[in-house]
Amino acid sequence: MTHLLKRYHPPGTAPGTLKAVSTNDATPLRIRLIDYSKDEINTLNGIDAAACAPYLGNDNITWVHVEGHPSEAVMLELGKLFKLHPLALEDVLNSGQRPKIEPFDDQLFVVMSMPMIANEQVKVHQVSFFLSEKFLISFCEGDSPVFNEVIKRLRNDGSRLRSRGSDFLLYSLLDVVIDHGFPALENLGLQLEAIEEQVLTAPDESSLETIHTVKRELIMLRHMLWPQREVINKLLRDDHALIHDDTLIYLCDCYDHSIHVLELLELYRDMTSSILEIYLSSISNRMNEVMKVLTIIATIFIPLTFIVGVYGMNFDTTASAWNMPELNWAYGYVAIWSVMLVIVILMVIFFRRRKWF
Amino acid sequence: MTHLLKRYHPPGTAPGTLKAVSTNDATPLRIRLIDYSKDEINTLNGIDAAACAPYLGNDNITWVHVEGHPSEAVMLELGKLFKLHPLALEDVLNSGQRPKIEPFDDQLFVVMSMPMIANEQVKVHQVSFFLSEKFLISFCEGDSPVFNEVIKRLRNDGSRLRSRGSDFLLYSLLDVVIDHGFPALENLGLQLEAIEEQVLTAPDESSLETIHTVKRELIMLRHMLWPQREVINKLLRDDHALIHDDTLIYLCDCYDHSIHVLELLELYRDMTSSILEIYLSSISNRMNEVMKVLTIIATIFIPLTFIVGVYGMNFDTTASAWNMPELNWAYGYVAIWSVMLVIVILMVIFFRRRKWF
Amino acid sequence: MTHLLKRYHPPGTAPGTLKAVSTNDATPLRIRLIDYSKDEINTLNGIDAAACAPYLGNDNITWVHVEGHPSEAVMLELGKLFKLHPLALEDVLNSGQRPKIEPFDDQLFVVMSMPMIANEQVKVHQVSFFLSEKFLISFCEGDSPVFNEVIKRLRNDGSRLRSRGSDFLLYSLLDVVIDHGFPALENLGLQLEAIEEQVLTAPDESSLETIHTVKRELIMLRHMLWPQREVINKLLRDDHALIHDDTLIYLCDCYDHSIHVLELLELYRDMTSSILEIYLSSISNRMNEVMKVLTIIATIFIPLTFIVGVYGMNFDTTASAWNMPELNWAYGYVAIWSVMLVIVILMVIFFRRRKWF
Amino acid sequence: MTHLLKRYHPPGTAPGTLKAVSTNDATPLRIRLIDYSKDEINTLNGIDAAACAPYLGNDNITWVHVEGHPSEAVMLELGKLFKLHPLALEDVLNSGQRPKIEPFDDQLFVVMSMPMIANEQVKVHQVSFFLSEKFLISFCEGDSPVFNEVIKRLRNDGSRLRSRGSDFLLYSLLDVVIDHGFPALENLGLQLEAIEEQVLTAPDESSLETIHTVKRELIMLRHMLWPQREVINKLLRDDHALIHDDTLIYLCDCYDHSIHVLELLELYRDMTSSILEIYLSSISNRMNEVMKVLTIIATIFIPLTFIVGVYGMNFDTTASAWNMPELNWAYGYVAIWSVMLVIVILMVIFFRRRKWF
Amino acid sequence: MTHLLKRYHPPGTAPGTLKAVSTNDATPLRIRLIDYSKDEINTLNGIDAAACAPYLGNDNITWVHVEGHPSEAVMLELGKLFKLHPLALEDVLNSGQRPKIEPFDDQLFVVMSMPMIANEQVKVHQVSFFLSEKFLISFCEGDSPVFNEVIKRLRNDGSRLRSRGSDFLLYSLLDVVIDHGFPALENLGLQLEAIEEQVLTAPDESSLETIHTVKRELIMLRHMLWPQREVINKLLRDDHALIHDDTLIYLCDCYDHSIHVLELLELYRDMTSSILEIYLSSISNRMNEVMKVLTIIATIFIPLTFIVGVYGMNFDTTASAWNMPELNWAYGYVAIWSVMLVIVILMVIFFRRRKWF
Repeated sequence: MTHLLKRYHPPGTAPGTLKAVSTNDATPLRIRLIDYSKDEINTLNGIDAAACAPYLGNDNITWVHVEGHPSEAVMLELGKLFKLHPLALEDVLNSGQRPKIEPFDDQLFVVMSMPMIANEQVKVHQVSFFLSEKFLISFCEGDSPVFNEVIKRLRNDGSRLRSRGSDFLLYSLLDVVIDHGFPALENLGLQLEAIEEQVLTAPDESSLETIHTVKRELIMLRHMLWPQREVINKLLRDDHALIHDDTLIYLCDCYDHSIHVLELLELYRDMTSSILEIYLSSISNRMNEVMKVLTIIATIFIPLTFIVGVYGMNFDTTASAWNMPELNWAYGYVAIWSVMLVIVILMVIFFRRRKWF
Repeated sequence: MTHLLKRYHPPGTAPGTLKAVSTNDATPLRIRLIDYSKDEINTLNGIDAAACAPYLGNDNITWVHVEGHPSEAVMLELGKLFKLHPLALEDVLNSGQRPKIEPFDDQLFVVMSMPMIANEQVKVHQVSFFLSEKFLISFCEGDSPVFNEVIKRLRNDGSRLRSRGSDFLLYSLLDVVIDHGFPALENLGLQLEAIEEQVLTAPDESSLETIHTVKRELIMLRHMLWPQREVINKLLRDDHALIHDDTLIYLCDCYDHSIHVLELLELYRDMTSSILEIYLSSISNRMNEVMKVLTIIATIFIPLTFIVGVYGMNFDTTASAWNMPELNWAYGYVAIWSVMLVIVILMVIFFRRRKWF
Repeated sequence: MTHLLKRYHPPGTAPGTLKAVSTNDATPLRIRLIDYSKDEINTLNGIDAAACAPYLGNDNITWVHVEGHPSEAVMLELGKLFKLHPLALEDVLNSGQRPKIEPFDDQLFVVMSMPMIANEQVKVHQVSFFLSEKFLISFCEGDSPVFNEVIKRLRNDGSRLRSRGSDFLLYSLLDVVIDHGFPALENLGLQLEAIEEQVLTAPDESSLETIHTVKRELIMLRHMLWPQREVINKLLRDDHALIHDDTLIYLCDCYDHSIHVLELLELYRDMTSSILEIYLSSISNRMNEVMKVLTIIATIFIPLTFIVGVYGMNFDTTASAWNMPELNWAYGYVAIWSVMLVIVILMVIFFRRRKWF
Repeated sequence: MTHLLKRYHPPGTAPGTLKAVSTNDATPLRIRLIDYSKDEINTLNGIDAAACAPYLGNDNITWVHVEGHPSEAVMLELGKLFKLHPLALEDVLNSGQRPKIEPFDDQLFVVMSMPMIANEQVKVHQVSFFLSEKFLISFCEGDSPVFNEVIKRLRNDGSRLRSRGSDFLLYSLLDVVIDHGFPALENLGLQLEAIEEQVLTAPDESSLETIHTVKRELIMLRHMLWPQREVINKLLRDDHALIHDDTLIYLCDCYDHSIHVLELLELYRDMTSSILEIYLSSISNRMNEVMKVLTIIATIFIPLTFIVGVYGMNFDTTASAWNMPELNWAYGYVAIWSVMLVIVILMVIFFRRRKWF
Repeated sequence: MTHLLKRYHPPGTAPGTLKAVSTNDATPLRIRLIDYSKDEINTLNGIDAAACAPYLGNDNITWVHVEGHPSEAVMLELGKLFKLHPLALEDVLNSGQRPKIEPFDDQLFVVMSMPMIANEQVKVHQVSFFLSEKFLISFCEGDSPVFNEVIKRLRNDGSRLRSRGSDFLLYSLLDVVIDHGFPALENLGLQLEAIEEQVLTAPDESSLETIHTVKRELIMLRHMLWPQREVINKLLRDDHALIHDDTLIYLCDCYDHSIHVLELLELYRDMTSSILEIYLSSISNRMNEVMKVLTIIATIFIPLTFIVGVYGMNFDTTASAWNMPELNWAYGYVAIWSVMLVIVILMVIFFRRRKWF
């Protein structure tokens, strides 16, 4: 659970302090620059921060995409180059932030959480954006090429992306981030369906653990995605100069998707609770059944065992006519069996009446 | 649970991409056009999209109703003809959207969810509308003729529908969509009543599964119908030029119905929880009863069996006067029965005191 | 539960369609007209709708009260006479509406739910009002003379009611409707107190059913009375021309009562949950007690029965000195009893330590 | 639970009807009048209502405090003298009102609930205030001298109270009313701590009842104190002419206290739920332990008892060599004991593995 | 739980009454004064209140930090010197206040709660601030040097702190207070992870108590930290003259952290509930397993014991051919063993079918 905590400096550290996270994951840092206008497009791969400088002055839109965990030096370089606010730089480095949007002068800083499925498990990566009129810088933890589809569309000469501003590029990337919620939910939905099936037919102890795992992932996802909705809403509502009017209708669509994801999460949580209830009930039903078998066996045989015990007593039948004369009767044994048979039949009738079997 | 997910394109797909859903359900596509004014009405059945063109220019109101899953081509054709926004077209094709309302220039795009009962099960179909001053296009999944009543009223020469604008037609169709919630709820209400009856008289394991099924359908319905209320509310509140003032009072009625449906859903959920509680309690009550029978039988017979066991021991009574002299007494056997009778009576008194039977 | 559904027409029926409910309850329809001013008062009982016409033109305030289920014809007649909106007329006929308030031109249409106690059960009747400057029409299901107190006060020459307008009459009737919540709650409160008493002293299976019944009635009442609060609030907040300023302070009092009723309902629900919790705990406590008795009896006698079983074995004591020589000892029987006594004492100490008795 | 209902007249009673509550509690009515200005102070004890008249005209501030249940006559007299609204008078008599604030012309009517501890139980008294520019009338059920501290401060010549208006007096009394929540909460907090201690060390059946009692008092207190917060908030927010600006900062402090009380109530409810959970779990843990002892005893001795039963059978060993030859072996008895010992050892190993003891 | 109550005076005490808390904790009171401007800095340690006077007149910013529980005399001295409001002084002394912000003329009074970890337990200290244009007074319970990091940064000549106003100093201290939430949460998160691990592998009774302890601390922390968010929000929203615009962006960051802490608390509570559910389920699963072992043993041996009991009866086989002739058969004993073997096999098959083992 502690991994949900954002990375934090010890209380009292000066605001805007940059300290690179110990990257024990060996994801190499990759910076990619795409400089485009309606008519031309330039792509640079694997460059270092300083290489972005020449593209700053021109009229094209410049998209710098940083993949992996950047070092302090890279952040400082980018910060100086693009005049990024130190508090925002700190938030990019201390990943695990809750999604938020913050305007800094003529820039917009956006932090989002992107759910990714890896080995059947949902992981959440922090994605950060700096939007300005003429450039967009995006940071993405992890190494999966999540924005490749957008790059492909960008390379397509006649595409809508090329003829619009940096805000439409931001929308396209936010759309990718939010739409990653659907496969994550699909994955959880399939797991839930499997558990439901199992709980209704053959519940066992492992079900409980699976339900807990799914519930945990739902709680975690909800925690990460809930503020996302608010971010898009703020983009729509607040009248940012950077977001043009004709992009709003697209952001609306994006907002709709983010609500759809959250409502499904809520629905899945309700379902998980309902499945847990059934699981618990069927466990208690089975206990009931076990108890009934025990009770039926015991209730039938305990009296019979008593009866045969009686005739195992060693009273001296010769001492008097009162001492177990039955033992010497010609049909004593037959009589005892008859008595026991009657008892069994009465018991069975009693159980039938109570609908025990 | 995954069927609640809207159909989605892989993250990164360009907005407005149309891709027809693989229609493995063989519902044939049916387009119907009704062109009417106060004085005349023309109906065309089973036409193709292009056939709508001639009716666009005139002064009448044109209603195009598309039943079943339309293909990409049909959508593109309709889109071009009526100038529909590509994002909206995409939403019609990717069914499973949450109900919403979106204004596009001089058009209004509305998505609704219509609950339908088929084979005692509740299914939810997406219904979409494009409203303009002079036309209304409606899309409805499935093949049931849900709007036939409206068509009948439309054919009636003196009807209010004929003398009003396209907004009143939209209201009439929305009213149909929302009122379909009542039979769906009635169906669930009847099921709940049956379960309640069963749980109070003779709860068994099948009850649990039925409760779960109803609960699931209630959760699902609530998820689909909740945003519906908001859609109608937006129609009422936002001052759309397309919605005339004299239609508002009718939409108010419609809004009232949608709230009524949601409140009943909430009420039914409370009821379902309460029924589940009773079910669990009566299961545990029956377990209690089973335990009591077992305990009474065992508590009475275990001591008796011990006693008869004592006199089944083979101590040599001739070895000394201390070795089970009772066995040779004249009234030993009678005495032992008396002792056991006293024990049974004491036990019964003990149980009575504790109110065990 | 289905009786909570409002009566509804099949989806697609034209708005404002009047269809009388099949009145299998033989409550005869009674129309009563009271025409009053500060100085004079006229009462007509059991008239038909048309008889109201002469009183429409004059300067007095005319109150028409309709008791029971009116027929279509009566509604149409009243509708034509008083110019009532067809949608409102439909709502009066299709009883089971949720409480609401709707302004129609210069009229105000109000629907309320009145809880009534009949045979210890709470029933909810729909009461509807049409308010205009000079008349008030009220409809009330059922045949109990709920407004008689108001009529009595109206006949009293110097009363405040006579000197005020139709809005004060409406307030007086709304006050009656809302105050009917108090006896209904008192009834439920007494039931709850009885159950609490029973659950704390001698819980049995019938408790469960009673708790469920009360819970069900609380859920139902809340569902019916919740929107009531909103209706009064709207009357207070919206600046209706028909509601004069000096009536507002009285409506405020009315609003206060409606909130008081709802808060008590909420409180009673919390109490019901708490009582259910105790019930379930005491059931499980009793199960525990039953189990303990069983365990104590079994744990004491099972080892003893084993011991006496040992000496019931038929090994040939003459075969060797190893074969159960105890059987032939002079004090064997006494020794065995001593061993068993020691075992019982140890057991009792063990149970005491664990605080089992 | 019915005592939480406010006293109500039968539905239909005219608003403002005064009917004295049957005071079977013999608290005598005591009216006390304090007339003060910065320089002088007069106190009258045990006067009747009419005696207040002479103090109405002067420039001083007049505080009339009524302790106990006033009769109709007293209320009417006071109402006429101070021009109090009949609806407000009715609310003072029908105690059990929810806390509220209502402006009547140039007066302010405030109803509050004051929790009092008597015999370790929390009771709630209604306290009502009429505030005007020059007088304050307060009504308090019960006979404890709750406002004595304020009176003492008032008698102190240099005190802030004396130099301020009637609104500061109202604040001081409201502060007393709200601060009575703290000892009530402290009392409940101590009870909760005692139960928690008991539940964690030695839970028994009485714990359940105590938890329920505390829970009940928390629910009740919350019901009574919740609207209190809103009353103070309204005093702060609404710009009443009677409340001077320099009193607002004090009311702010008062508001803060009322929120503190409510948050603690909420916290205590959460704690109570948590304690109930532990109680239920430890009950079920103890059941588990009982079951284990039973199972261990039974599982060990049932097979042994079977074995000794086998050798208690009376087959004729002389009939053939197949008929229980063991009985005549020299070491048969020893062998049987060895077998049984091995079984016991295996059982113990089995239980150890399952961590049953 | 009573320690969560703020220290309160008996109801009726005059507002602003100062009464020092009985400091049975021997934390000595320490006052520290730091007087700084961009160019110079003076530090005084362990001074008394009067020593602050000379620094009041100058143009520098003066920070007075009071550690430990101040006496009445100290508070009065400081109050007179810095013109602090008596209500605020009272709140500093009566620690346990809920976090709040209150403007007094040209000062701002802020109360916060700072969670501290001591001996693995979370404690909450009250921290209070008085902000004015030229000075800041801070009070902190406890003796840990929480603000040392800020003092260090302040001593650094070129630091941002030195060149900004008193509002930036307040922000820096608030940031320290709020960031103390992260280590507290980390501590609870690690405990939760440990319990989860334990509950999933080897749940025992101690788990329950640990879950309760964590839950209790979460409830308590939430109670203390919830109003914190509101305090920072008010600082941001209300346009206080003392808070300069360029400090707002830093307070925004602070607000974000306070929300992050609360959301994690909420998440941890959900997790705790989920872990408790698993714990309860696995307890009931183990009970089920115990029951099954008992039932299997009993069900197999009870019938067998009955059978061997039958052949232990002492009927006189010579009395008639009907009296247990089996006893004298040559293969009677073998036959009986065969019958018992068949019974055991049938039982095992029966249990296998029911999936009991």
